[in-house]
Amino acid sequence: MSQPPPRYGAPISLATAGRVMRAAQAEAERLQWPMVIAIVDSGGHLVMLHKLDQAQYGSIPVAQAKAETAVKFRRPTKAFEDAVAAGGLGLRLLGIDGLLPLDGGLPLIVGGELIGAIGVSGMQAVQDAQIAQAGADGLLEHDA
Amino acid sequence: MSQPPPRYGAPISLATAGRVMRAAQAEAERLQWPMVIAIVDSGGHLVMLHKLDQAQYGSIPVAQAKAETAVKFRRPTKAFEDAVAAGGLGLRLLGIDGLLPLDGGLPLIVGGELIGAIGVSGMQAVQDAQIAQAGADGLLEHDA
Amino acid sequence: MSQPPPRYGAPISLATAGRVMRAAQAEAERLQWPMVIAIVDSGGHLVMLHKLDQAQYGSIPVAQAKAETAVKFRRPTKAFEDAVAAGGLGLRLLGIDGLLPLDGGLPLIVGGELIGAIGVSGMQAVQDAQIAQAGADGLLEHDA
Amino acid sequence: MSQPPPRYGAPISLATAGRVMRAAQAEAERLQWPMVIAIVDSGGHLVMLHKLDQAQYGSIPVAQAKAETAVKFRRPTKAFEDAVAAGGLGLRLLGIDGLLPLDGGLPLIVGGELIGAIGVSGMQAVQDAQIAQAGADGLLEHDA
Repeated sequence: MSQPPPRYGAPISLATAGRVMRAAQAEAERLQWPMVIAIVDSGGHLVMLHKLDQAQYGSIPVAQAKAETAVKFRRPTKAFEDAVAAGGLGLRLLGIDGLLPLDGGLPLIVGGELIGAIGVSGMQAVQDAQIAQAGADGLLEHDA
Repeated sequence: MSQPPPRYGAPISLATAGRVMRAAQAEAERLQWPMVIAIVDSGGHLVMLHKLDQAQYGSIPVAQAKAETAVKFRRPTKAFEDAVAAGGLGLRLLGIDGLLPLDGGLPLIVGGELIGAIGVSGMQAVQDAQIAQAGADGLLEHDA
Repeated sequence: MSQPPPRYGAPISLATAGRVMRAAQAEAERLQWPMVIAIVDSGGHLVMLHKLDQAQYGSIPVAQAKAETAVKFRRPTKAFEDAVAAGGLGLRLLGIDGLLPLDGGLPLIVGGELIGAIGVSGMQAVQDAQIAQAGADGLLEHDA
Repeated sequence: MSQPPPRYGAPISLATAGRVMRAAQAEAERLQWPMVIAIVDSGGHLVMLHKLDQAQYGSIPVAQAKAETAVKFRRPTKAFEDAVAAGGLGLRLLGIDGLLPLDGGLPLIVGGELIGAIGVSGMQAVQDAQIAQAGADGLLEHDA
């Protein structure tokens, strides 16, 4: 890591999690992608989870694990996906329990502090990541 | 049980779960009770979870376990709480993994079929049950 | 609960945890009680653990579980011990995974906010609680 | 291994673990690296754990797993990291539960006998290993 990771901040509120969820869910519904979307707080505890209709059951713990990984290690899960894909030394990450090296988990950062994370699962990992990003972008929007 | 349990039906939709959640959450917010509210489908899989601000962390798995218990055994969790409280033979229920004998879990039944369950945790069990009932009542309401 | 539980606050710092640990450890050493002493933060994550010489191995997860229970449910674990001991309805608590109903776990509260918890195991539960209380009292002392 | 592994000896004492911890912690604080430092005894049981402020939560079990791996298999965890990085046959190590192939775990050996291990996590693995080595070097120092 070339720059220091974000500091842990206060846990995300339900209102803020709702804003992130609405943004992520709107994008998933627009694309008709059956996703599971999970949001955890800065302590890694689940604050909000929505399973869209016809999303696969197996994605429920996967979405949570992506969000937990992003908050536990304070970085997008894509960093771990890339390391594993590069092979060699990167494969050691597969030995860490509770670290899910799959794109689709993003820290939620406000004012430089990590307040939680979003994890999405249900389609290809790159699609999951698109929905997670839509959710993270929702952090910045004002409620109507 | 003198009457047959409800048949398992199709899994609750996100829209219906949302209606149940809004009804339960509105009651919890009206009373300023910091609750965790979980809704599972007819397969016992988590469809929606909201943790209200300042709800205790320990209530996250408890709310889920109440909902899962209600759908696994097709009855309100209070039935098991009563059995345990009666002692004697009822204590054997404590030996069943994945059965949580705590009031606050209710099956969600539509047209005689079980489509899911709601579980609530965060206050005393009788208060949890009040919020769960408010959620179940939301099943009957039409969306505005 | 007749009064509202403490709010979750920022996680306990290593320096503060060290003060709590020193106070608890000094009391255990004075009494020559072979204890395991664990301190978790407001998110339930382990911040500090010391196992005194000749403490039983089995007490390592027990001390942690007491501390985790105290922070997860924001109250001394004795509240749950008492409820179970009273029998009847209280026995339902035995069905909650991750809730340890054993005296010896105490929330650590500063300025009305819960910053973590201490859990002690190694002797009889009442003795464990004595050491936990000594640790909690250390919160108030100034470093020399 | 061309030479026999160290024999298992008596478990590390709290006093010795404290000396190792102080040496590791001093090096981490000097470098301002937010680490989790764990020390286990010759039976693999946790004797001491300190989480420095702002260390990532995910490092708590990782530091423990590194120390446990080093004592379970009586060698530095870097040996397993190298094997995994080499690929081919070395990848089979990823199938062993409870073996973490990440640099940063070192056996603690006194008089040819293994008395415990130290595991460090929080930065890049090579940095973790630097702190672990500082801790191991503390074994040889006399208390002031």
